[in-house]
Amino acid sequence: MSVVIPETDQALYRALAEELRDQIDTGALAPGEKLPSLRRMAQLRKVSVTTVLEAYGRLQDWGVVEARPQSGYYVLAGYESPCERPAPVAIPEPYEVRHTGQISAMLAEAVSGGGMPFGAAIVSTELLPYQQLARKLGDVCRRKAAAMQRYEFSPGYAPLRRHIARRYAATGVACNADDIVITSGCTEAGQLSLRAVTRPGDTVAIASPTYYGFLEWLESLGLRALEIPADADTGMDMDALASVMRAGRAQAVLTTPTYGNPLGSLMPEDSKRQLAALAAEHAVPIIEDDIYGELPFSGERTPPIKAFDRDERVLLCTSFSKSLVAGFRVGAVVNRRYCEGLAQLKRCASLANSTPEQIAIADYLESGGYDRHLRRLRHVLGDSMHRFSRCVAESFPEGTRLSRPQGGFVLWVELPAGSDGFKLKTAAQRAGIQIVSGHIFAPDDRYAHCIRLNTGIRWTPEVEHALRTLGRLAKELV
Amino acid sequence: MSVVIPETDQALYRALAEELRDQIDTGALAPGEKLPSLRRMAQLRKVSVTTVLEAYGRLQDWGVVEARPQSGYYVLAGYESPCERPAPVAIPEPYEVRHTGQISAMLAEAVSGGGMPFGAAIVSTELLPYQQLARKLGDVCRRKAAAMQRYEFSPGYAPLRRHIARRYAATGVACNADDIVITSGCTEAGQLSLRAVTRPGDTVAIASPTYYGFLEWLESLGLRALEIPADADTGMDMDALASVMRAGRAQAVLTTPTYGNPLGSLMPEDSKRQLAALAAEHAVPIIEDDIYGELPFSGERTPPIKAFDRDERVLLCTSFSKSLVAGFRVGAVVNRRYCEGLAQLKRCASLANSTPEQIAIADYLESGGYDRHLRRLRHVLGDSMHRFSRCVAESFPEGTRLSRPQGGFVLWVELPAGSDGFKLKTAAQRAGIQIVSGHIFAPDDRYAHCIRLNTGIRWTPEVEHALRTLGRLAKELV
Repeated sequence: MSVVIPETDQALYRALAEELRDQIDTGALAPGEKLPSLRRMAQLRKVSVTTVLEAYGRLQDWGVVEARPQSGYYVLAGYESPCERPAPVAIPEPYEVRHTGQISAMLAEAVSGGGMPFGAAIVSTELLPYQQLARKLGDVCRRKAAAMQRYEFSPGYAPLRRHIARRYAATGVACNADDIVITSGCTEAGQLSLRAVTRPGDTVAIASPTYYGFLEWLESLGLRALEIPADADTGMDMDALASVMRAGRAQAVLTTPTYGNPLGSLMPEDSKRQLAALAAEHAVPIIEDDIYGELPFSGERTPPIKAFDRDERVLLCTSFSKSLVAGFRVGAVVNRRYCEGLAQLKRCASLANSTPEQIAIADYLESGGYDRHLRRLRHVLGDSMHRFSRCVAESFPEGTRLSRPQGGFVLWVELPAGSDGFKLKTAAQRAGIQIVSGHIFAPDDRYAHCIRLNTGIRWTPEVEHALRTLGRLAKELV
Repeated sequence: MSVVIPETDQALYRALAEELRDQIDTGALAPGEKLPSLRRMAQLRKVSVTTVLEAYGRLQDWGVVEARPQSGYYVLAGYESPCERPAPVAIPEPYEVRHTGQISAMLAEAVSGGGMPFGAAIVSTELLPYQQLARKLGDVCRRKAAAMQRYEFSPGYAPLRRHIARRYAATGVACNADDIVITSGCTEAGQLSLRAVTRPGDTVAIASPTYYGFLEWLESLGLRALEIPADADTGMDMDALASVMRAGRAQAVLTTPTYGNPLGSLMPEDSKRQLAALAAEHAVPIIEDDIYGELPFSGERTPPIKAFDRDERVLLCTSFSKSLVAGFRVGAVVNRRYCEGLAQLKRCASLANSTPEQIAIADYLESGGYDRHLRRLRHVLGDSMHRFSRCVAESFPEGTRLSRPQGGFVLWVELPAGSDGFKLKTAAQRAGIQIVSGHIFAPDDRYAHCIRLNTGIRWTPEVEHALRTLGRLAKELV
């Protein structure tokens, strides 16, 4: 594996490895099945034997296949389902969100505390092109010093809005730069969207389990939550959501359909289409958090709900924080109907985004490096997710279930009944490992036996060691 | 006047000129009175004759004194009151704020439209140390690229909070870094403060005329406004405000006591002390916008209301946007009682401020250049304000009244009865001059005959020409 391989061949073997992994994931290649020989596969795919060897090696690294001496490569038994998927919970009544206050504060503190970063959903700095961004920002400092000292009033820097519009247009979203308001990350995008379409006391449908931030947002705005059970694979239960929307039980929907946090679930395209239609039919706005949308492990970017929105009922919220740079605080809302109101809310909330980063990110996007970076990042994240899953399946207590994300970098782990995620978190912290307990993803203790792992990290022996340590601690605490 | 003078002597003559101007302003030196001779003043002040000559020259430039050949320097007749001060209006009932939506949008558009910038309250780029800031930010890009890509979670970058605390401590505010939450400018500081201490439907006391942004903030948060008449010199009427607070007619006060916008008024220290005491006694929080606080024309920085706050009822909001750099969006709230709640609201609103600017401004403050810059800026702003006032008094219609700010860079001009600020604005725009009509500083047409001028500009022949053109237009439109 230590042969240095040219960039183009790397792309070939990675593509092949991921394609085979997908076939194994979906059962097209069954456990125990033998892969074609190196020579045969090379002929079939018109690539070199070295490329196939690399691809098979990658599958071995992932723990998906094994090489049997004198025989060939075989799909490992039991890979298809290393753990069962967590089961969705029932739909409760709407409730007032309260006392969420300390979650994000605790998480922020944990981040600054150091340790193995399986806690907050943050991609490792080393996986992001921060040096290129720093160079772009440095260029802005040298060449556009006067421009960057000025207010770049909401809706924000036009070249940046054009780039965002162009990228979304490529995923099927009908939008242009005038439909876009630049925000301070996805958080401000979501908050302004909620403020644009709800009033205090309104009910907002969210997934269960949900990103804890959504609970905090709702509380801070005096909004009520109505939980829709979420499946680990497909996200929010569409039947339940449809009945809520039809009955007018929620004034808005707040969802992360693409690699949602904490399950990493992906709402199928049909459901997305159906949801957009329901939103139009019942005039219920959908606030779509697409922050992980750029991070499928393989294949093309999946279209957001917004791609199926023919009535401007979907407020698409996005950010560069998860896929490019966190500290620059650049996000956006895409929606024509509410655009003017959102720009005004933004002016009231914070007047304008900081100018230098808007210019620097627009310049970076202009330079064309983003897609190249995303390709590399997706590979690493896919790699890590598979290794994390495999390692959890091997080292955690029997009866553990886990989600199977196809993108993003959060993994949901349901420990056996009787486990306590918070106790595990405390024990892990003593061992120098940050994790997040399931408590924070619901307003009660429903997910107290769960934990969420941040997998936005390059897989190393240290990571594996920490994860095995976590598994041992989980076993001790059952 | 073209002699090159060392920096220390410059400080001497400027100080002398400003002291004499203050004496003339307050009437201690009466119109027509003769100033001491150059030699006599040099003896009195123990400075060189050249220094006195420079100081007197500056007073001539300001149009405050005249040199009579063979005789000496005389205070110009009529300077004490080139125009009368505008009169305060009566106190109305609380009202729901509505339809403010287009004000900031229009202003933002006007700024990008170009023309002589007497409109939006923005200091000219050339008066700000934007190159130094760009260098600092460039240094951050080179040396702290990894750090600046990360989230700097609310309450924000600790070294920056320490600098802000230290600066306020020097004005008599009892605070430390832990009492401070970094925000996206003063706008977010004010919004978060309002959200921390009010609920939708509450009434907030504001000045009349008021910064139009306050009206927009109140509308966006569903708050009601109760206007307190403001005097052009001393700001909000303390008797009226005290009676409102005693009667519990407002749940919060939102004020810019130091060089308030649009009047440029300065609340006297006694009133500030009284207001802090009332806030403590009646548990009515005061949101103090101190964005112009660093910009007195002469003398020391005046203490904010917060300096007299013994019960943590004053939420002090500040920003570097008016005095250092607008595009960086760095502000803060200072308050111990609400600090934790504000940090949480900030996390919900936008998670964190952008990291690079927080580091760059902290590094800039550390380098010690800020006070040097402020000294220069204050002189230029004081100079411009006096020349603007003088020129308005000379060239505007008879019966024009104007405010007499002691700091900041907004000048309030009350045109004779029957004038229409909006018509003047439209005519000015055609002549390539941006101004703001009085309409936007109240919810009705009460100030329709007023305009506000941005004086944050270096005085040049072009500026003078534009202002005289504006005066001519005003005369034509009466």
